Amino acid sequence: MQRSIMNIKIVWDHKGATWTRTCVLAVHADGYNSKDVYIPEDISDMWEGLEPEIRAALIAKELSSAGMPMKKSDYSIASTPTAMSRSSSEVFEQQSAYGSSSNKSSEEETSVVKREKCPVSGATVTLTPLERAPKNVFSFSKTHQNKTETVEMNSNTTVTKTTKVVCTTRGWRNVFQLPICYDVNMVPQGTIFDPHNSQLLDVTGVHPEGYNQRFAVVDAEVEKLYGDKISGYFEGKGITLTKVVIDGGEPAKRPQAIDTILDALCAYKLRRREPFLAIGGGCVLDIAGTAACLYRRGVPFVRVPTTLLAIVDASVGVKNGVDYYCCVTDETYKNRVGSFYAPSACLLDPAFISSQDERNVTNGLGEIMKLALVRSSDLFDLLEAHGKTLVESKFENEDLKKNGVSSRIIDLSIQIMLEELGPNLWETKLDRCVDYGHTFSKLLEMVPGADIFHGEAVNVDGFFCVILSYLRGYVDMDTVDRIFKCMKTMNLPTNSDDLKLELAWQSCQDAIEHRHGEMRIPLITDIGDSICVNDLTKEELDRAIDMMGKFDH
Amino acid sequence: MQRSIMNIKIVWDHKGATWTRTCVLAVHADGYNSKDVYIPEDISDMWEGLEPEIRAALIAKELSSAGMPMKKSDYSIASTPTAMSRSSSEVFEQQSAYGSSSNKSSEEETSVVKREKCPVSGATVTLTPLERAPKNVFSFSKTHQNKTETVEMNSNTTVTKTTKVVCTTRGWRNVFQLPICYDVNMVPQGTIFDPHNSQLLDVTGVHPEGYNQRFAVVDAEVEKLYGDKISGYFEGKGITLTKVVIDGGEPAKRPQAIDTILDALCAYKLRRREPFLAIGGGCVLDIAGTAACLYRRGVPFVRVPTTLLAIVDASVGVKNGVDYYCCVTDETYKNRVGSFYAPSACLLDPAFISSQDERNVTNGLGEIMKLALVRSSDLFDLLEAHGKTLVESKFENEDLKKNGVSSRIIDLSIQIMLEELGPNLWETKLDRCVDYGHTFSKLLEMVPGADIFHGEAVNVDGFFCVILSYLRGYVDMDTVDRIFKCMKTMNLPTNSDDLKLELAWQSCQDAIEHRHGEMRIPLITDIGDSICVNDLTKEELDRAIDMMGKFDH
Repeated sequence: MQRSIMNIKIVWDHKGATWTRTCVLAVHADGYNSKDVYIPEDISDMWEGLEPEIRAALIAKELSSAGMPMKKSDYSIASTPTAMSRSSSEVFEQQSAYGSSSNKSSEEETSVVKREKCPVSGATVTLTPLERAPKNVFSFSKTHQNKTETVEMNSNTTVTKTTKVVCTTRGWRNVFQLPICYDVNMVPQGTIFDPHNSQLLDVTGVHPEGYNQRFAVVDAEVEKLYGDKISGYFEGKGITLTKVVIDGGEPAKRPQAIDTILDALCAYKLRRREPFLAIGGGCVLDIAGTAACLYRRGVPFVRVPTTLLAIVDASVGVKNGVDYYCCVTDETYKNRVGSFYAPSACLLDPAFISSQDERNVTNGLGEIMKLALVRSSDLFDLLEAHGKTLVESKFENEDLKKNGVSSRIIDLSIQIMLEELGPNLWETKLDRCVDYGHTFSKLLEMVPGADIFHGEAVNVDGFFCVILSYLRGYVDMDTVDRIFKCMKTMNLPTNSDDLKLELAWQSCQDAIEHRHGEMRIPLITDIGDSICVNDLTKEELDRAIDMMGKFDH
Repeated sequence: MQRSIMNIKIVWDHKGATWTRTCVLAVHADGYNSKDVYIPEDISDMWEGLEPEIRAALIAKELSSAGMPMKKSDYSIASTPTAMSRSSSEVFEQQSAYGSSSNKSSEEETSVVKREKCPVSGATVTLTPLERAPKNVFSFSKTHQNKTETVEMNSNTTVTKTTKVVCTTRGWRNVFQLPICYDVNMVPQGTIFDPHNSQLLDVTGVHPEGYNQRFAVVDAEVEKLYGDKISGYFEGKGITLTKVVIDGGEPAKRPQAIDTILDALCAYKLRRREPFLAIGGGCVLDIAGTAACLYRRGVPFVRVPTTLLAIVDASVGVKNGVDYYCCVTDETYKNRVGSFYAPSACLLDPAFISSQDERNVTNGLGEIMKLALVRSSDLFDLLEAHGKTLVESKFENEDLKKNGVSSRIIDLSIQIMLEELGPNLWETKLDRCVDYGHTFSKLLEMVPGADIFHGEAVNVDGFFCVILSYLRGYVDMDTVDRIFKCMKTMNLPTNSDDLKLELAWQSCQDAIEHRHGEMRIPLITDIGDSICVNDLTKEELDRAIDMMGKFDH
């Protein structure tokens, strides 16, 4: 790319004094004049959010570094409304001034003082930015008003005394935005361990010359099928791969498995910013993600899902976790211990699907069915028309590959999942339609000795919720039948002997605990639409269980 | 506040054409010429990390918004080595265009298509926002170019074949900003368990009427001294407090302690958004913070530090963790397992300090001394003048309370800590002056049977680093002596029998692993100023250990 040189002469005229600076800046000769530079929105917002002084100082620094030195102190930008002032409805004072920490008049205060009212306690808060971290740290004073009532009762009289206490406290506020960004990459079908595809190597990070080792957590099942290929891929590039092999079954999804990974990471001496690979089904990805969050308080990790379920579910979001046995209650809780922790990247090769058995393909379709029910009648139509063939061919039917149905189903699932998770990544909002099928399934999965896979349990829960919707009049019997038939063509279980009233009611109580005080159980109002309800009754559950028995599961 | 106007005339001279722009910028008449605007380091880093084109575009936009419009496309800044461009030798093109979905004219398209070049892999990335999450989720296509060289050698000839593969892959990008905000509240001295002070109740959250239970993790030592007061505080408000009591000693800072809390939380049935209290020293706060991060993938928790060390250190930032025994290497690693996880609030009552023994007050002063050395000669002066009295009176000397010295020292420490941590909360930047004293101390603390507290180990490390600074000529012997004397007046240990060459060198290797490839060891260049170095040699360490022996510790 060609560049040419542009001279910029800047003449500063201030208080009668004039400085002249000439900066020599490179400009792209071709291609550059023809279009505007696009400033990404986050950068633009960040820029707008900076204090005018800081913006000015940055510009001064930049211009001076391009040419002759320039006194930063001569330069400033007028204060304009910024992102911060827009986000506050409170009295917001923004001043910009220049001064030092000691001998200055009140006119020259350095600080931008902000006043707000705490929406919870009602306290008035005055915030003053700290000099060396003015965007992130503020000292504050809070003024609370507390009223205490004392009631004294004698034989015949009641005396109520009200004490009003005005209390001012001080402290500091830390404000920070943690930027999260990760790519969910589709890998061209079947090429993930192909030496010509560099995607797997690329995601393991940039390292200095001669740093020829990498670390991977590998699912035991995957190791059997692909172990040599995985090692071979890296060996071919002169890299030694250290693997820790983990049992990928649901019963192994426990804290002990996290420890196995942590031990291996200690022994391997993983560097703080060195991404490790997690290759396997949903359980292995969940265990590895929790370990990644915990090791050195967080190291990068890359998810390589090897099951349909993991491709459309575990690999997409930021949730990790394991089941937890509590020795006080003597119970085991599904996903009770884990974290929200983003992967550094995900690599999705749909070719893995065909290495699974049919039941596991069906298992994955359980989560896809859920997404169809709550968000997409298009996706449901595809499942209805092709579900049976997809299971039988494990997504490898030539016609469905040629006409794009196989990849369309995976794409739609991931897109819907991302659209739902993306803006609510840390689950600030607890009403989540993707929780459909995840209320009763938790306990169904935890029944000792239950032979039910996650996607299967989600589907039983999902069909139970269809019945609940029907009983409330949200959907008609035709819709129920249509959903039932579609589930059946894919061999998805629609009922379980363990689905009894006690389990269903306990599930609602657990939901209230987990979703902070409300059930927030998603029910469908049509194929592709859902709402959250908080008022399921025991009677309703009982009727639904009764009605479940009337279907030919 | 006074402002005056400064005229800036910018003359652009490019390819024979000349543009002249005059911008009218406000300048603050007073106070500004006397000192430079301080650009916080994180902002400066961010700025350096932007592509030259983006920087140029921002400047163009800023200047044009202050004066006359200016064509962005005419403007560019010479490419200087930046954080990003250093990792990429590629040219970076960024375009903005508007793309399609159906029958709209190109001017009216809703979706903003963004094109960029990956600074690491060099791939060209085109990003299109998803309809239902346009700020957070983008589908992308990436075009990579890979070259593979194959060398074939026969008896006499060498054939080199270069295969160039242009590969386009697709996927989705998830972009998210996690907002973090917490208050570090000072509690009026000695009032934390006073029923008239509502701060402790307020931080436990807003709950529905009749939800009369709360949960607290309490340090065993604190339970002995304040157990009744803590329970009484809540009982008086009609609330039942469930407590889990945890050993607060360093040897107990292990994963098992996290499990104890997790078990108790399961039994208590803590709701997802219900903050629990953690009352104790730094170890208990670290254990509780890790448990809070893990339980249900994160529940809110409130830090109530009860030691000087915890008040100025553990309670302020977002780091949690425990020591970890690895059964593969048969070694125990300091803080190897934990998380970055912000508390929902902190309550700091300095009255707790006086319930500690003198050695523990000294222990806290170890971390304060560190902050003084790297950032504040003011703080050092205060320690030098009053350190002895502070230890002996445990911060309760009436004169020092009246003239504000006691609280000034705590305030300064917290402020410095927050200024350093605040903009770098997740340690994106690994060069951290607050890591001073935290390189050699880790192994000193882990020596089996070592009777050394954290702040003491930090101080030994800190003094060792003063010697290293001296040997490099960063500070003179007068400064070394002054620091040594000041440490001694507070009974801070300045040496340890365990500080041997092997341990020191291993510490440097551990630092390289933890700080990703570089030692990044902070050394002081004066009292209150520091830099990070990467090139300590074994010889240097040996000389420093030798010199340590010459002081009368």
